[in-house]
Amino acid sequence: MGDNTLGTKFRITSFGESHGKVVGVVIDGTPAGLKIDLDYIQSELNKRKPGQSSFTTARKEEDKVEVLSGIFNDRTTGAPICLIIKNQDVDSSNYEKSKNLLRPSHADYASLQKFGGFADYRGSGRFSGRITAGFVMAGAIAKQILSKDKISIIAYTKSIGNVEDNEEHSIDDFEPLLQRRKKSPIGALDLEVSKKMENLIEIAKKANDSVGGTIRCIINNVPPGIGGPIFNSLESNISKGIFSIPAIKGIEFGAGFDASRMKGSEHNDPWTIKNGKIKTIKNDSGGILGGISTGMPIVFNVAVKPTPSIGKIQKTVNIKTMEEDNITIEGRHDPCIVPRAIVVVESITALVILDFLLIEGKILSVLKD
Amino acid sequence: MGDNTLGTKFRITSFGESHGKVVGVVIDGTPAGLKIDLDYIQSELNKRKPGQSSFTTARKEEDKVEVLSGIFNDRTTGAPICLIIKNQDVDSSNYEKSKNLLRPSHADYASLQKFGGFADYRGSGRFSGRITAGFVMAGAIAKQILSKDKISIIAYTKSIGNVEDNEEHSIDDFEPLLQRRKKSPIGALDLEVSKKMENLIEIAKKANDSVGGTIRCIINNVPPGIGGPIFNSLESNISKGIFSIPAIKGIEFGAGFDASRMKGSEHNDPWTIKNGKIKTIKNDSGGILGGISTGMPIVFNVAVKPTPSIGKIQKTVNIKTMEEDNITIEGRHDPCIVPRAIVVVESITALVILDFLLIEGKILSVLKD
Amino acid sequence: MGDNTLGTKFRITSFGESHGKVVGVVIDGTPAGLKIDLDYIQSELNKRKPGQSSFTTARKEEDKVEVLSGIFNDRTTGAPICLIIKNQDVDSSNYEKSKNLLRPSHADYASLQKFGGFADYRGSGRFSGRITAGFVMAGAIAKQILSKDKISIIAYTKSIGNVEDNEEHSIDDFEPLLQRRKKSPIGALDLEVSKKMENLIEIAKKANDSVGGTIRCIINNVPPGIGGPIFNSLESNISKGIFSIPAIKGIEFGAGFDASRMKGSEHNDPWTIKNGKIKTIKNDSGGILGGISTGMPIVFNVAVKPTPSIGKIQKTVNIKTMEEDNITIEGRHDPCIVPRAIVVVESITALVILDFLLIEGKILSVLKD
Amino acid sequence: MGDNTLGTKFRITSFGESHGKVVGVVIDGTPAGLKIDLDYIQSELNKRKPGQSSFTTARKEEDKVEVLSGIFNDRTTGAPICLIIKNQDVDSSNYEKSKNLLRPSHADYASLQKFGGFADYRGSGRFSGRITAGFVMAGAIAKQILSKDKISIIAYTKSIGNVEDNEEHSIDDFEPLLQRRKKSPIGALDLEVSKKMENLIEIAKKANDSVGGTIRCIINNVPPGIGGPIFNSLESNISKGIFSIPAIKGIEFGAGFDASRMKGSEHNDPWTIKNGKIKTIKNDSGGILGGISTGMPIVFNVAVKPTPSIGKIQKTVNIKTMEEDNITIEGRHDPCIVPRAIVVVESITALVILDFLLIEGKILSVLKD
Repeated sequence: MGDNTLGTKFRITSFGESHGKVVGVVIDGTPAGLKIDLDYIQSELNKRKPGQSSFTTARKEEDKVEVLSGIFNDRTTGAPICLIIKNQDVDSSNYEKSKNLLRPSHADYASLQKFGGFADYRGSGRFSGRITAGFVMAGAIAKQILSKDKISIIAYTKSIGNVEDNEEHSIDDFEPLLQRRKKSPIGALDLEVSKKMENLIEIAKKANDSVGGTIRCIINNVPPGIGGPIFNSLESNISKGIFSIPAIKGIEFGAGFDASRMKGSEHNDPWTIKNGKIKTIKNDSGGILGGISTGMPIVFNVAVKPTPSIGKIQKTVNIKTMEEDNITIEGRHDPCIVPRAIVVVESITALVILDFLLIEGKILSVLKD
Repeated sequence: MGDNTLGTKFRITSFGESHGKVVGVVIDGTPAGLKIDLDYIQSELNKRKPGQSSFTTARKEEDKVEVLSGIFNDRTTGAPICLIIKNQDVDSSNYEKSKNLLRPSHADYASLQKFGGFADYRGSGRFSGRITAGFVMAGAIAKQILSKDKISIIAYTKSIGNVEDNEEHSIDDFEPLLQRRKKSPIGALDLEVSKKMENLIEIAKKANDSVGGTIRCIINNVPPGIGGPIFNSLESNISKGIFSIPAIKGIEFGAGFDASRMKGSEHNDPWTIKNGKIKTIKNDSGGILGGISTGMPIVFNVAVKPTPSIGKIQKTVNIKTMEEDNITIEGRHDPCIVPRAIVVVESITALVILDFLLIEGKILSVLKD
Repeated sequence: MGDNTLGTKFRITSFGESHGKVVGVVIDGTPAGLKIDLDYIQSELNKRKPGQSSFTTARKEEDKVEVLSGIFNDRTTGAPICLIIKNQDVDSSNYEKSKNLLRPSHADYASLQKFGGFADYRGSGRFSGRITAGFVMAGAIAKQILSKDKISIIAYTKSIGNVEDNEEHSIDDFEPLLQRRKKSPIGALDLEVSKKMENLIEIAKKANDSVGGTIRCIINNVPPGIGGPIFNSLESNISKGIFSIPAIKGIEFGAGFDASRMKGSEHNDPWTIKNGKIKTIKNDSGGILGGISTGMPIVFNVAVKPTPSIGKIQKTVNIKTMEEDNITIEGRHDPCIVPRAIVVVESITALVILDFLLIEGKILSVLKD
Repeated sequence: MGDNTLGTKFRITSFGESHGKVVGVVIDGTPAGLKIDLDYIQSELNKRKPGQSSFTTARKEEDKVEVLSGIFNDRTTGAPICLIIKNQDVDSSNYEKSKNLLRPSHADYASLQKFGGFADYRGSGRFSGRITAGFVMAGAIAKQILSKDKISIIAYTKSIGNVEDNEEHSIDDFEPLLQRRKKSPIGALDLEVSKKMENLIEIAKKANDSVGGTIRCIINNVPPGIGGPIFNSLESNISKGIFSIPAIKGIEFGAGFDASRMKGSEHNDPWTIKNGKIKTIKNDSGGILGGISTGMPIVFNVAVKPTPSIGKIQKTVNIKTMEEDNITIEGRHDPCIVPRAIVVVESITALVILDFLLIEGKILSVLKD
């Protein structure tokens, strides 16, 4: 339980609402002594900030990180770190008008059943994608710590609608990939494929519609032996974290669903020795066997559904009159949530991996520069 | 942490090894007063027992459930229930012979890194699918409790290799589906499709190979409002549980990865009123929105990789000599693990759903018949 | 783990430092629909605020509660509630001067060992009693919920030094006791005894010394059957919470340490029937048997050590020079912490009891007024 | 929650009943590679076994430890270890006769309220002191691991009734103390005081009565810096564990309740340097400041109530007739539970301390001999 807490030794607690005062996070378990780079946290936040391209909501938010606790003389102290961003460009008028109409594939009805109608519905409240800003602030700190152990995480847009990037991108050196991703306004690695994806989003936008996609995430340099055989597997914990991101409907590791269509002789990853180290020749296992890291890159894909908020007319129910009705969702929405979700996927992944490493004693509770 | 514990209020702890004395489970948090039907637990165990068809390992195990604690006058007492099955037909000779050869896509190397070579390697030890017998015993008790609230769970073979059952089976009445599933030796619902699937498994078996597949799981009658918006979503907890089953490489809810290829106007589930109740017209959301149940059936698919143990020659490494070598895996193995995994998927699902209902106070700690 | 999180279904996360920007708390698991009375939270905070009498530190803090999240239309929403107070009257000069001298019976050395010297030492940082303001804000919400079920909690000064109030105060009606406690500047129930206690504190203060004491806490109307027989006993969880309060060195339930000097025939509480209900004639068990509530008032005492910050010269060590030295602790300190700790004891108790009741399903997740 | 689970990284799960088939424990999180000394586990079990002196129940139990899982080639594997003892000398007749009479200061009524009358009442079921045999088996493994880091734990009878051993026993060398304790049939360190204590127990026994006492526990060589400032303090976690032992009614650390009667200038422990190490001159803090170890011995006392089962006539209620009645408790009971509880206190302490050290990464998950 603890609906709003993730992690064991590195533990984040999320709070705040889309149209409330703030969105925030408390980060408990950060090793002491880490020099905090607020500019880096801000640069991570900016990746999910609205208004970075024409493909995002028109909501204007500065999303400036503020430190409430846990940092002293620019370093972590071992105490819980509380970070917030303020909500500024709040326009709740559309939510007032239609608050009795259930938005299709939104959480309105589920929320009503769980919270008895007391939930803050403005801007979807706790169900808003905006809540993930807290994950990103925490994730930025986790990434800083992981980078000291040369562990890097990259996620990118693998597909939008039926346009897919099927290349196996070499992840031996992340830097060139990051440079390529920067050039794509939607976080793709292949610029030609990116153009086709952008086009799809543009079409959806013009049609008052939206479109889904997939994100691939790769983690490099996780040491072998992390995770556990039964209920504490890497897949269990990564998937638990990832499904906390709104709009995620699926996750697969390595060959994933393709593995279900393969023979053992095709899917099995033969062992070999490279530079004196035990490795597999290919990586259909996605870097995980028996729930434990093998030392190969950890690879997984996630499925992102199309943004449920669309301008098209949809059938629905008015919960006050209990009659069927139509709804046209106004307001400011992303025609495709994939590009802004990339950094969120990376952040959650960083939180989960760091938690494992701290628990296993691979990262100590006091860091030395 | 607690690598071997799953759940919060309804909590199971797994113990035992494939070739040790027993495989067992402690079930903590069972409401008091439940009349225990040991025959039912046994019938569930029998579904994953080896030797039920020509498609499974030749290992012969009676897998007879024994009660060590927690049941008094045939009823649960509220105390932890310990259930075991004994290991009888143990043949560890093959494991001795090849214990220095890493089996491709097995956990040998991961285990070595985590447990320093001290793990019980016989029959894959804790990494064996046999451990899931404990999940099934616990799941049988969970199912008995859920059934009192009319909550039923059915899983079935949705695909083997590239043969897929694409029908949307009506889940309003499970009983006919269960009858159909009984007739298929591999747990499929459509007998014609089953034949094709069986054929694929037969071919793989003859070729000393193996084949993967997918399992669909449907949960009926979960009340709306169960789950949570952020880190305690239904998807988070179901996926965490499901990835504890060996060989699972992916999970998707509702339309899942297909959703990533859809437009919002296609994927969104419009609301309607049926028999005075709020429902969705279709169920691409898989019964979950915002991490919370909507009252529609909860639907998910899991990807099962082909059994890694195959008789074909494979490349590998000898960890003693640190030289490359070949391996041919002898011993008794399933050419396809999907059929025996069905009841395991159902069991884990039952454990997770019951835990949620107990936590939410929808099921009380003392049951009355 | 989760050094800064307490509770399971009702869970608080503490953050902030004595001389940082804020002291705060995130409260997760509050049922939705509760009308929040900020004046009540403030009145609870005021009970531990410094400067309420001549017996407390001279630090001047307004300690005004601010809501950052979780409240909408004056009611709880089911979302995490973040409450803060700001630190205003911060004077860190004394801490700078003597930061290399270990203060006797303070956590300086323990902190150094754990956090490698990176902890915020100003005003004792996370070790400050000021952190408990967060417990009180959360406790005030818990008390509001408990009071709907007629569960009330009262704590009072039972002893200061060797002056003890040995009366068994009738707890059938709390109101008169609360009125009497209000009249004592140090939270005693007996005004004559209070005078003697105040005198002891005055003497200690004049001597640049400090004095300890005990607090008794009584919980009324907890229904029988709450708690658990083994690791989840009421005593286990209450004591875990209470020892989170700085300066607490002991806890005893019912007859407590006196029980160790009794015979079974003296200590045993005979059963009887009062007004058709099963009760015990006396209550040496303190309302708990087998870790579970009996329906009698839950009664416990806690030992509070004398404030370690005293103006007298003390022997110590300079950790920079690694030489022995003397220290005289300047700054603004309470000669006795007992009076301000009373509301903190009540608050932690309320958090623990509410958590139990929510877990057991005795209080639902949506409240109706 | 998880009524029957204690610990985070080193986690035990208790199962079994007093008159059921077995009493057992699953130990999860034991580092791999530890050579298991079953004779040592047995010798620990023997310390709490009935029939060791004339002061214990006449129940005859062999209490022979059996391994069900987790040990391979005489070493731990990193997998969960399941240990059991069988119940043999079971005589439930007395419990049948009087099952409707509430035994004073037993958990009968609390159990009835919690478990609705379904609990196994024979021999007190889960509320029996016999359950602690599981704690002792797990504790023996924890002690073996701790001893590799030179951490030792000793508990002894500090008082019986009003006969108290007030000496501060030097704990620099445990061995002589252990030798002295062995000579006392009731686990006292001072043989003269022991005689007086034995006499008190004898008198109680003859009078069909019982008597309480206190146990002191000392932990040596815990490194400084273990524990946490707020909700994860050493006191919080030790007390949570200790109150899981039946009959414990109080716990105090260092000077404990005496501290409440002291002045700061008396209670404060001045710092000094001994052999180049920072130490305190005395240890009224009991080795813990700010919830964290200081490197001094950790010292605490626990209060044990007199055995509630006595042969004297007591007033009670018949829950079937709901009329007042008398009860004389027959059966085989200890006139004083203190001597047999000593090893249980040590065991729980070992479990808690080991859990902390594993979490902090001070003990690794793979041990090397």
